[in-house]
Amino acid sequence: MSPDVASNTPRILIIGCGFGGLEAARALKNAPVQITLVDRTNHHLFQPLLYQVATAGLPAPSIAAPIRHLFRRQRNLLTLKASVEDVDPKAKEVVLEDGQRLGYDHLIVAAGATHSYFGHDDWAAHAPGLKSLDDAFEIRRRVLLAFEAAEREPDPLRRAAHLCFVIIGAGPTGVEMAGTLAEIARHTLPGEFRRIDPASARVLLVEGGPRVLQTMPESLSESARRQLKALGVEVKLGTRVLDIHAQGLRWADTQGEQELASHCVIWAAGVAAVPLGRRLAERCSAPTDRAGRVVVQPDLSLAGHPEIQVIGDLAAAQSPGPDGALRPVPGVSPAAKQMGRHAAANIRRTLAGRPALPFRYRDYGNLATIGRHSAVVDLGTPLGPWRFSGWAAWVFWLFAHIYFLIGFRNRLVVLLDWASAYWTFSRPARVVSERARQTAIGE
Amino acid sequence: MSPDVASNTPRILIIGCGFGGLEAARALKNAPVQITLVDRTNHHLFQPLLYQVATAGLPAPSIAAPIRHLFRRQRNLLTLKASVEDVDPKAKEVVLEDGQRLGYDHLIVAAGATHSYFGHDDWAAHAPGLKSLDDAFEIRRRVLLAFEAAEREPDPLRRAAHLCFVIIGAGPTGVEMAGTLAEIARHTLPGEFRRIDPASARVLLVEGGPRVLQTMPESLSESARRQLKALGVEVKLGTRVLDIHAQGLRWADTQGEQELASHCVIWAAGVAAVPLGRRLAERCSAPTDRAGRVVVQPDLSLAGHPEIQVIGDLAAAQSPGPDGALRPVPGVSPAAKQMGRHAAANIRRTLAGRPALPFRYRDYGNLATIGRHSAVVDLGTPLGPWRFSGWAAWVFWLFAHIYFLIGFRNRLVVLLDWASAYWTFSRPARVVSERARQTAIGE
Repeated sequence: MSPDVASNTPRILIIGCGFGGLEAARALKNAPVQITLVDRTNHHLFQPLLYQVATAGLPAPSIAAPIRHLFRRQRNLLTLKASVEDVDPKAKEVVLEDGQRLGYDHLIVAAGATHSYFGHDDWAAHAPGLKSLDDAFEIRRRVLLAFEAAEREPDPLRRAAHLCFVIIGAGPTGVEMAGTLAEIARHTLPGEFRRIDPASARVLLVEGGPRVLQTMPESLSESARRQLKALGVEVKLGTRVLDIHAQGLRWADTQGEQELASHCVIWAAGVAAVPLGRRLAERCSAPTDRAGRVVVQPDLSLAGHPEIQVIGDLAAAQSPGPDGALRPVPGVSPAAKQMGRHAAANIRRTLAGRPALPFRYRDYGNLATIGRHSAVVDLGTPLGPWRFSGWAAWVFWLFAHIYFLIGFRNRLVVLLDWASAYWTFSRPARVVSERARQTAIGE
Repeated sequence: MSPDVASNTPRILIIGCGFGGLEAARALKNAPVQITLVDRTNHHLFQPLLYQVATAGLPAPSIAAPIRHLFRRQRNLLTLKASVEDVDPKAKEVVLEDGQRLGYDHLIVAAGATHSYFGHDDWAAHAPGLKSLDDAFEIRRRVLLAFEAAEREPDPLRRAAHLCFVIIGAGPTGVEMAGTLAEIARHTLPGEFRRIDPASARVLLVEGGPRVLQTMPESLSESARRQLKALGVEVKLGTRVLDIHAQGLRWADTQGEQELASHCVIWAAGVAAVPLGRRLAERCSAPTDRAGRVVVQPDLSLAGHPEIQVIGDLAAAQSPGPDGALRPVPGVSPAAKQMGRHAAANIRRTLAGRPALPFRYRDYGNLATIGRHSAVVDLGTPLGPWRFSGWAAWVFWLFAHIYFLIGFRNRLVVLLDWASAYWTFSRPARVVSERARQTAIGE
């Protein structure tokens, strides 16, 4: 009954069940191995739609599936809900939070990334990021309670501060959040308040660089900026955040420094590897990059440790582009999935006595949604890049995401939720749990 | 734009948006009044299905609807998310948690009930009750993590403690929880674990009285007990709880005292009025009953304060039965709804210069679900009581609840969730947020 007490079958340990870990585990489905899949949570999260949970568009179970349910039919896999605190490469063991040790013959580390406040960890309390379900609930709480607080606030200046939403960082998450918040303020809430006009809310998207969606071609960045503006988002490019505190934030741009009062600042700017990355790198004498990601060999293993592979957002990997030159593999879900499948394939090769192969990233393109009817798409095709934006891009984005929501609750239920939200402009998950009342409103 | 600054229109203040407050507000829809509806949360909760959220059958938004969305078209109503801390009947004002005061001409207090641990408030940490969404999330967390902890636990005794679920109190909530937990252990989870057999979990329903569902006729109580037994629930009647602590609980029955190790004890035994009830009673010199409910006049107002009405679970009201004798109005949702409509009607009568009428509770019957295919129904009909149980009762219960889920998200989505859960035995909302990892598993 227990795969982890059996014989001398090779033991594969996978840390983390994001896109990378999930794919690696699935790709080993019929392999003659014993897999232990360890995750801190009990669910796999469909991260690309997490902003929908944060903005009350979807309930959490629509994008989070219990890991052991996903793998119920994979008999060579044991799921453990646990947090890995350390790795002991000499003993070939990992150490869990309660001191328990798990042995492995092959280790796949797919523990992912977390927020980085660039050395300003005190900003975290005033500007939550969006990585986990808890983050999404916290942002949902702040957004919805900001409007509630405004309705109660007689002072016009303080009311304006409650109705000022600032998103920092104009990558895909920042752009999605800004577009959706503008949509909520302009379309969902008007008519439901008696003292305030929700449509008067300001939504600012603050970016240090010269354009939004910097990984996209320039023409699509410009299109995204125009679409954001049409939705009512104020896009502030070339703007550096100097401080974030309980009352708002301070920034600097070409016109000098400015202070803005806001009780709802959302952090979508920095990403760093989880702390386990540095610990692993130390134990294995592997280098890390500036974001704390572990520098891997071309085959995704660590130098001197062919039995350890690091994949997904935790890995600083390189892959040859179309011109043959090495480029960093981006921290996106398709890359994590590809690395997961590659790590699994390399384990199969190793077990068969064949050498591991180098990883090669296939870039099928890039897409980002902005809001109702707005998105940008950049696809690589054999005929060259295919780029489009606006309504068609939004429909493409919608179906791509519904399609990839595999294994989740019920794609039909999600589609119905969306269809209903689309026609009625409503947000079906506008629920804040009561715990909120113990905290100052609009903190 | 702001109804609360206008003229001399009568100001109606409603505290609480449960079934009672909601119905009162709706019943005043076209009245020439200004209504302010105050609730601590931002949502109306469909309490009869809260156990489904606690047992991962439904996501929270399926049974919680934003209050201001429900009332968006009722222009004479202002929604405020606030907590009422005190009432000043002389000044005709209530005091909010931030000291702000709201004036009224008519006050409807529908603030509801909370758990009562019968003087053992220290039990609350070890045996959460089920009243709010937060309660439901906490119970969901404990139930799901108990199985996770068991899968990690090598010691058989400690493993058994993780797999022992105790529900205290065999009223409708206790019976629903016990039946559903047994269903999860026997039907949902088997096949998903590798080291434990979830079906070996014990589910105990502990009741001090001589039968389950004591408000039901004896024949249905006995039927419910048999249905629970068939689902695998151990029903312990005539059993008094002596202590609940971090490691389990101690009880006494005819065979003496016994200690049981369990990390998941759920409290479904005692209900008490919210603290605002006692404060209101003090201010108005009104009596309260043992559970802290405010004793009201036949017309639901307070003696000497015709402008204050108390309804729902907070009211100790009486109503003449079929034989004309006064009986306490039960703390069930149909009673709260009827009181809400009655309070609104009395306000209309008062405004029209007519006397308020006494409240008369109409008991249309009683139903309780037990689990898959199991329920009991007791309906009053002109031809006498109509009682049935089993599969037909379960179908009746299902459609009655879907029907009453008015104003919520999407009845179709809920029905789909249920249909899918029914056919696949899965529980679509088996998600525990990460905050869990900061707490000891199985605490």
